[in-house]
Amino acid sequence: MDYALLLNDALPADASRQQRLYLALRAAILQQGLAAGTRLPASRQLAGELGIARNSVVYAFEQLASEGLVNATPRGTVVAALPLNTTGLRAAQTATAVLSRRGGAYRTPFREPETPAAFTPGVPALAEFPMARWQKRLARHWRDAAVGDLGYGAPAGEPELRAAIASHLRGTRGVRCDNAQVFITDGTQHSLDLCARLFADAGDIAWIENPGYHGALNAWRTAQLDVRGIAVDADGIAPGAADWREPPRLIYVTPSHQYPLGSVLSLERRLQLIEHAQRHGALIVEDDYDSEFRRDGPPLPAMQGLVADAPVAYLGTFSKTLFPALRIGFLVVPVALAPLVDAALAQCQPRGRQIEQRALAGFIRDGEFLAHLRRMRKLYSERRDAMIAAIHRHFGDLAEVCGGSSGIHLAIRLPATIPDATISRQALAAGLVARPLSAYRSGAPDSASNGFILGYAQVPASEMDAHIATLARLVREHAAGK
Amino acid sequence: MDYALLLNDALPADASRQQRLYLALRAAILQQGLAAGTRLPASRQLAGELGIARNSVVYAFEQLASEGLVNATPRGTVVAALPLNTTGLRAAQTATAVLSRRGGAYRTPFREPETPAAFTPGVPALAEFPMARWQKRLARHWRDAAVGDLGYGAPAGEPELRAAIASHLRGTRGVRCDNAQVFITDGTQHSLDLCARLFADAGDIAWIENPGYHGALNAWRTAQLDVRGIAVDADGIAPGAADWREPPRLIYVTPSHQYPLGSVLSLERRLQLIEHAQRHGALIVEDDYDSEFRRDGPPLPAMQGLVADAPVAYLGTFSKTLFPALRIGFLVVPVALAPLVDAALAQCQPRGRQIEQRALAGFIRDGEFLAHLRRMRKLYSERRDAMIAAIHRHFGDLAEVCGGSSGIHLAIRLPATIPDATISRQALAAGLVARPLSAYRSGAPDSASNGFILGYAQVPASEMDAHIATLARLVREHAAGK
Repeated sequence: MDYALLLNDALPADASRQQRLYLALRAAILQQGLAAGTRLPASRQLAGELGIARNSVVYAFEQLASEGLVNATPRGTVVAALPLNTTGLRAAQTATAVLSRRGGAYRTPFREPETPAAFTPGVPALAEFPMARWQKRLARHWRDAAVGDLGYGAPAGEPELRAAIASHLRGTRGVRCDNAQVFITDGTQHSLDLCARLFADAGDIAWIENPGYHGALNAWRTAQLDVRGIAVDADGIAPGAADWREPPRLIYVTPSHQYPLGSVLSLERRLQLIEHAQRHGALIVEDDYDSEFRRDGPPLPAMQGLVADAPVAYLGTFSKTLFPALRIGFLVVPVALAPLVDAALAQCQPRGRQIEQRALAGFIRDGEFLAHLRRMRKLYSERRDAMIAAIHRHFGDLAEVCGGSSGIHLAIRLPATIPDATISRQALAAGLVARPLSAYRSGAPDSASNGFILGYAQVPASEMDAHIATLARLVREHAAGK
Repeated sequence: MDYALLLNDALPADASRQQRLYLALRAAILQQGLAAGTRLPASRQLAGELGIARNSVVYAFEQLASEGLVNATPRGTVVAALPLNTTGLRAAQTATAVLSRRGGAYRTPFREPETPAAFTPGVPALAEFPMARWQKRLARHWRDAAVGDLGYGAPAGEPELRAAIASHLRGTRGVRCDNAQVFITDGTQHSLDLCARLFADAGDIAWIENPGYHGALNAWRTAQLDVRGIAVDADGIAPGAADWREPPRLIYVTPSHQYPLGSVLSLERRLQLIEHAQRHGALIVEDDYDSEFRRDGPPLPAMQGLVADAPVAYLGTFSKTLFPALRIGFLVVPVALAPLVDAALAQCQPRGRQIEQRALAGFIRDGEFLAHLRRMRKLYSERRDAMIAAIHRHFGDLAEVCGGSSGIHLAIRLPATIPDATISRQALAAGLVARPLSAYRSGAPDSASNGFILGYAQVPASEMDAHIATLARLVREHAAGK
């Protein structure tokens, strides 16, 4: 056998020479090109043949021996008898190349470029984030960190950050909480996953808004909950008596800015929802995802604080208020649940990132967070106004603007005859991300959710008109029956 | 009504004055201390009474009006009729103050201090991590970052880091993979959660080793899989014909260093497991958690690379090789599954942390990672040797040492008459974390898993003897029948 032939291009180029020799011999033994009983050349001889150090050969032999693939015998190194015939194992494709039902059920409503384009919703004005100041703060916390900060940390998150968030929420969002109710997560998707698992079992009924947030739908589905879409109107989620006949375990709502349509849940609906939830033992999951950016009048306070001990788990994130790559969110649970969640998280939570968490706590405590929010509120108002003006200019009566009072996106509704999904694909080809409202529906098609959701946070006011004009042109071509 | 009395200590101290007034009025209205139809004082008058700026009062009134709690009328600001009687909502405790069955099933085998003590397993020698060099690297990547790096990033992780990990695994662990098979996660717990959801449905059979890793048990349970503990012997997991009669969907194994007992899965068992898994459409989840620290002979390569297209999902983490607070792990899936996982993750994965991921990619690519591993391998050998010597010295024949050949912990087995859980509690009181082996069992008690799991990575060799002497004293007191 010419051992040099074994060292072919199929071996990883990034392995060391001894590792390559070892892998080559191993593959030959497992594929039975080197049969049981074959005596391998002496290490000195093989090293000479291959032009490598003898030690590399010795190392490879030792490694094979430790796996039981060769035996060191008085007559030299001999290929061992394999405990099993391995030729059948080389199936080109494994029989298990399928996802689970729930894994396959993840909804992929949009195919978009990874780099945000104009109108990509959910991405704040990244260029306006004080990156250099944040980096300095982070570097300072790293310099001040102790060795222990490299360890696992508290499962619920850094106490400093929990306190800073609790104080911020009490002061600005009317949330009733103490620090022990606040749990740090990796963002809203993680918070939703936790709610689905900690508060519901497979088969339990869980509501989402219809149209609604696909992230919540995915979280409920992965947890194998029985998902029901509940209709939304101008006052937010509107469950009827028939819906309550089979009461849910979880109710996902976006009361301050319904996703995607932007309606605000009315006080009456809020109180009804709380009252019904209490009566039926349901937990409301309040996603307050962009309430910080309400501009027309003071921000509406959270449902969580509307009455004492409301059956509400409150979710927030810094992805929209600071930047998505930070990947820090939070979950506020009712007082009575806090110790239970704390105990469960200790066993299931990825932990760590103490230094980043402490830097963020300082950013909030020192007022930089509020200052940034104020700057962004002003900037987003300008951009929103520019977008609405451009929509009126280019769409005229064709489009109805919804949900511009808060957040960083708005929605436009179009007549039912205009195919939003088709135009969305055409817009993408023109460099615009205009997600179709119809993709957010969870039930039968309805004319109320036909149109687009348009993010304005990243689009400078001066560029707004041209982009909206492009989108309007595509819509008008369809409206004209082309 | 004396409005000053409303501004009491129950209000959040960290809210602004106007926010406090607003919250106070709101609570009074919702609790019907201020009845519907009540006319509130004029803003100027109330401002005078309370000694606050008139604007603050106006703001509070506007906020109440936007919620529908007051109406601006010609005769002034009047408390609105509530759409619902809210007094019944003040239940002291919500009816929903329970976790789900799966949430309540999280296993809490240990109650330990959050700061690691001597023998806490799973924590590397934090004091030896080149923190300053890491921080400099991180700072450089922050300085070089572009605005786009603050966005969501690729769901599968930064391409650079996927490539660096793939190359490292091919070169040092015999893993057969290209970059597209590598997915970045938040650590092993996250990887396990993903495997449970993407590859199994509620009710599917899933194996863990018995005794075995409670993190895997928790992940399988939360996904509501049908968990079966499979016995482990000196050659690793040992499923019998009866076990295979009900074939599993997932098989969790720790082949290079069985957790917690430390046995190495034999070649025969590895091939059998792969062969059976292929035949029954099962997926092996190979947790290679501390294989980098094998010291007696060359590291055993991963099962994943044993044959082509092995039905193996391979998990790794930087928590043990670098530091836990980094919270970065990875999952390598079979070629055929990679595009499916990629599509699913795009919809369910928390994304971000591009800059940290790129810093880590550089650390690996520039050889700093391998250099650190080499240093730690040497250090851990010394500490392991010191621990084993101390065990022989103080325990004599009473304890059998298992699994010291790899990793950062070993196990000692004790006679069945010695109550490991009781002694573990006593050790904790003495400042030692000696987790009882019996806590890792998933089935009936058996004498093979009685003893302790002892981490040595953080304990300097010079301090080993004293700590082991303390533990031995506690054990001997029990052995003597005290």
